[in-house]
Amino acid sequence: MRFFSDNAAPVHPAIFTAMADANVLDTAYDGDRWSKALDARFSELFETEVRALWVPSGTAANCLALAAMCPPHGSIVCHRDAHIQNDECGAPEFYTHGAKLFLADGDGAKLTPQTISAVLDATRYDVHQTQPHAISITNATEYGRVYSPAEVAAIGDLAKARKLGLHMDGARFANAVASLECAPADVTWRAGVTALSFGFIKNGGMNAEALIFFDTDLADATLYRRKRAGMLLCKGRYLAAQLLAMTEGDLWLDLARNANTGAALLAAAAGDRLVHPVEANEVFIRVSAAEAASLRALGFDFYDWGPGEARLVISWNQDPADIRPLADAIAAL
Amino acid sequence: MRFFSDNAAPVHPAIFTAMADANVLDTAYDGDRWSKALDARFSELFETEVRALWVPSGTAANCLALAAMCPPHGSIVCHRDAHIQNDECGAPEFYTHGAKLFLADGDGAKLTPQTISAVLDATRYDVHQTQPHAISITNATEYGRVYSPAEVAAIGDLAKARKLGLHMDGARFANAVASLECAPADVTWRAGVTALSFGFIKNGGMNAEALIFFDTDLADATLYRRKRAGMLLCKGRYLAAQLLAMTEGDLWLDLARNANTGAALLAAAAGDRLVHPVEANEVFIRVSAAEAASLRALGFDFYDWGPGEARLVISWNQDPADIRPLADAIAAL
Amino acid sequence: MRFFSDNAAPVHPAIFTAMADANVLDTAYDGDRWSKALDARFSELFETEVRALWVPSGTAANCLALAAMCPPHGSIVCHRDAHIQNDECGAPEFYTHGAKLFLADGDGAKLTPQTISAVLDATRYDVHQTQPHAISITNATEYGRVYSPAEVAAIGDLAKARKLGLHMDGARFANAVASLECAPADVTWRAGVTALSFGFIKNGGMNAEALIFFDTDLADATLYRRKRAGMLLCKGRYLAAQLLAMTEGDLWLDLARNANTGAALLAAAAGDRLVHPVEANEVFIRVSAAEAASLRALGFDFYDWGPGEARLVISWNQDPADIRPLADAIAAL
Amino acid sequence: MRFFSDNAAPVHPAIFTAMADANVLDTAYDGDRWSKALDARFSELFETEVRALWVPSGTAANCLALAAMCPPHGSIVCHRDAHIQNDECGAPEFYTHGAKLFLADGDGAKLTPQTISAVLDATRYDVHQTQPHAISITNATEYGRVYSPAEVAAIGDLAKARKLGLHMDGARFANAVASLECAPADVTWRAGVTALSFGFIKNGGMNAEALIFFDTDLADATLYRRKRAGMLLCKGRYLAAQLLAMTEGDLWLDLARNANTGAALLAAAAGDRLVHPVEANEVFIRVSAAEAASLRALGFDFYDWGPGEARLVISWNQDPADIRPLADAIAAL
Repeated sequence: MRFFSDNAAPVHPAIFTAMADANVLDTAYDGDRWSKALDARFSELFETEVRALWVPSGTAANCLALAAMCPPHGSIVCHRDAHIQNDECGAPEFYTHGAKLFLADGDGAKLTPQTISAVLDATRYDVHQTQPHAISITNATEYGRVYSPAEVAAIGDLAKARKLGLHMDGARFANAVASLECAPADVTWRAGVTALSFGFIKNGGMNAEALIFFDTDLADATLYRRKRAGMLLCKGRYLAAQLLAMTEGDLWLDLARNANTGAALLAAAAGDRLVHPVEANEVFIRVSAAEAASLRALGFDFYDWGPGEARLVISWNQDPADIRPLADAIAAL
Repeated sequence: MRFFSDNAAPVHPAIFTAMADANVLDTAYDGDRWSKALDARFSELFETEVRALWVPSGTAANCLALAAMCPPHGSIVCHRDAHIQNDECGAPEFYTHGAKLFLADGDGAKLTPQTISAVLDATRYDVHQTQPHAISITNATEYGRVYSPAEVAAIGDLAKARKLGLHMDGARFANAVASLECAPADVTWRAGVTALSFGFIKNGGMNAEALIFFDTDLADATLYRRKRAGMLLCKGRYLAAQLLAMTEGDLWLDLARNANTGAALLAAAAGDRLVHPVEANEVFIRVSAAEAASLRALGFDFYDWGPGEARLVISWNQDPADIRPLADAIAAL
Repeated sequence: MRFFSDNAAPVHPAIFTAMADANVLDTAYDGDRWSKALDARFSELFETEVRALWVPSGTAANCLALAAMCPPHGSIVCHRDAHIQNDECGAPEFYTHGAKLFLADGDGAKLTPQTISAVLDATRYDVHQTQPHAISITNATEYGRVYSPAEVAAIGDLAKARKLGLHMDGARFANAVASLECAPADVTWRAGVTALSFGFIKNGGMNAEALIFFDTDLADATLYRRKRAGMLLCKGRYLAAQLLAMTEGDLWLDLARNANTGAALLAAAAGDRLVHPVEANEVFIRVSAAEAASLRALGFDFYDWGPGEARLVISWNQDPADIRPLADAIAAL
Repeated sequence: MRFFSDNAAPVHPAIFTAMADANVLDTAYDGDRWSKALDARFSELFETEVRALWVPSGTAANCLALAAMCPPHGSIVCHRDAHIQNDECGAPEFYTHGAKLFLADGDGAKLTPQTISAVLDATRYDVHQTQPHAISITNATEYGRVYSPAEVAAIGDLAKARKLGLHMDGARFANAVASLECAPADVTWRAGVTALSFGFIKNGGMNAEALIFFDTDLADATLYRRKRAGMLLCKGRYLAAQLLAMTEGDLWLDLARNANTGAALLAAAAGDRLVHPVEANEVFIRVSAAEAASLRALGFDFYDWGPGEARLVISWNQDPADIRPLADAIAAL
């Protein structure tokens, strides 16, 4: 069994059905009826008026959001372990035309008002330094931690006080919401989030993510930036159809809950080995090289995560029956 | 019947089958076996060693190719009606970090060594002007004209003499090759083309185009640029599978031939109304506003193309039986 | 005698005196008392509140102004012979992060509301094309023509109606104002100009130009862009002192008047040979290769300007006595 | 007396003399005889063939050097207290089109092969991270520390082994060389430096720095980048003349020696208060708020440098007689 990444998982059958249903002649780009339905669908899901754009990657969602908030001569505060800092090959710098990422600290890749303020307060307010224009947080984080509505709201208050945009990288937003059992609105706009990269691909989608603007004024220029980035795909309806399928009923939540449940199963088995509390679908454990090798010998695949640690990610399609053997093997180490 | 654009057409069933076959757990991004098969597949198709990268849009293919050839302080010669100039919202400028497009002339959006040289010769070779680093041609052109191998080779010779890269925007490359009945190699690298945007989406694909480097040295840095642009999609195998399906047997050629045949049917009916010779799957005709209205009243949809002209595009899935009524209606005007 | 360019001329003694007076310890960058005096000095000169920034080159002034008006996904309408298009090696694209220049026509490098509208009206208002955000005109133009207040106001009205910024490249603004005998305000903000590159270097300065914002809201972000471009020089007082010296009394106008007078002298001698009416300090004449050679044989240096034409530029320090021999030689051709 | 910054100091008389001597008509931009003399002058000074370009600011020199070494999708290792990271408002990101700065540690803002390797080794060599292309060190550092030839060579060896460019920010290069009493070549190209920002402005110049390429292949494209940045000033001879004046005889070294001597005087007085060893012209001392206030009450001006610290910078024109009173006051605290 492979526990490398939810990126590696297959695509949910509902995605294929939805794309097949969209397989008719319609207007190119985003003029089709599926694309046009997104604003309403996500406005309903978030209980407020939003603008929703499809994009084919989370990196695109993140970077279009950041470019909407931060000029080239500005900066963005994020965690030093953030995906936008470490895993996007400078895409934020590309899309923002060179804005700087200011790196803050926090356990489990979670920022706090204190760690953010430490960075903000270290900035001189003169023209010799780029000035912060936005904060970016990841929910669930790169270490599978979840920000609660109250935690986001505390950061949202800071952002508002400092006149900064607040972006949420929600590559695993579904896992976070499933974990929190809250309304999606509670952990986003009600807590001060300006724009959300709402991830579906890790959660069973194929190649469509949603970029959600709660500050709807940011959307218009983004339409130009999306086109200019080559991200306005010719036949957008196949992306829009994916998003509509995932948000039909609670499919997106059901899939995330399943993955979270699997992670909880591993967490229970791992006990003291856990590096971080398990709140979503990622499990980081302490294992020696020999222990890691013994797990692999049993057929379990995963990434080493620095010396003495391993990362195990549960995907939407992995059943408890698939996961139990790994849990047992960990417990038996 | 709608003759707006081949962009609006549905997707060929083989694409769905291929994506379903790829719907298994595999490595993320482009580490999967489908993505890894692309170099070999396209090397075979082009009878030489190439590097082949999937990208989700033709704009991305074009602009990654141009960025590989031209530094930010350089310029690219293209036709003044080129897609990269008029229809990509400045994406070439975004990807190249501000290189300039130098606009040349030519009937039917076709450049010639003469019109290209006119632009090159008007450039002062000092630091006050950006220096040309590449030529970009479109085959088939924006007006449905086709460059022959000899015509491309004449431009290729010029490019070589001037030490310029030669990019071919092949959004409708299949239609060009189907029209020319030549080997794909003849109209590309054998004629001096350095990089090709090989389009599949207009020809029945969903969201995968191939960026082909005949100058294979250009590929390595492009892998970073693709990631940095947010274009390295998480589950790349669904794109790679599309390209493999389209190039299995002669599917790509068969579909293009069908579209070209439909266009020829319209061309025969249009006679003197033709604005450009019909060589691929686009037909531009002279019609008065009243005539255009009468065609629309019969249920035919298409774009006006400036005053007194209309553009009719045939898609891969339109049968002669679908097209005959329009041909008759045009003949009867 | 050399008539190549006013760029080649020496520096007026008042500049040296002013720099020597500023040669004391003061605050670095632009915190010194000379730099701080610029807003007031130029506000007085323009009879309205302006923000005035020193920069060391006209290209910097032009491009900071354009970047203040136009986002990366926008475009700027300028004449196809404009300095920003032909002589700045893509600096506008660099500073704006890839905005496009849309090229319009007009005799003597002068735009008109009609030629600008032709370009604007050819733009599709969809996301596939960059949208115009600004117009840039040059006064005096690259061919030594001058826009009158009424002519600028007609363009200003168009800019306002279309919600576009209006930039004036005033590399030879002094020559234009000297020619028009109007208030500087009349041909700038009263006529709708948003920002002015006010040139001093060609007019006897050393390395200081003024970037004037009539729309003062544009200045704040520009302070960051200037620093980010490496244009906030360490010891700015030596630039500020130059600007103050040039605008002390009417020095800038006196020097420009002298150059214009010299050009008028040549114009009178050239008669039918003139390519453009002579309104500032540049004279374009029709001369055969043999005639050009004969002038050079007499010791007069100048640039050929395409086949059969020559450009003669008069500098601030050239006396009528210096120019008379050339006038006589032209008349004698 | 003001000890804020060597940026605030006046300009040496030889600069004025040299600019006055250059105040004749000559070719514009960098075609004049002063600009053309720079390659030879600096090649002599460095005992090897170099390419030398004038630029009006240290930020421009730094960023043109970095852009010559690092593509937009690359990264540059520098100290976390480096000027390019903290004091240039994102200019490196602007000139490189978004390359990332990777921050390394080291006492006194000095990098070591170990601290650089720690950063390099933490980089994954896949397309998800920007790959290092250059190292940038500052000599003398932001804290007035000096790299010896051996220390630079150790970093140069690492750079060579890793195929990285090595840039030296020499805003206070003169102070470093004066301190080291070595040949300029020893601490630059002989130690593996690829490009040097050779600062003159802090050392008595007005607005000219030299960008020196030891890897002369990097110079050609930089000429375009300099123009494109608006940095090719119209009347470049006034900048070139400054550089020639400063490197005539040992003027640049004499001025730096004087400043260093002054700093040594303060260092001796400060004793245990020193935060960093004093090796150039900057002195960082521990002082309480009350002590700092008492120094200011005596007429000494300087910057606080974080809580409990103060920075004192000695300029080229400050005599021991000027500095003694401050030394006495510090000793008396």
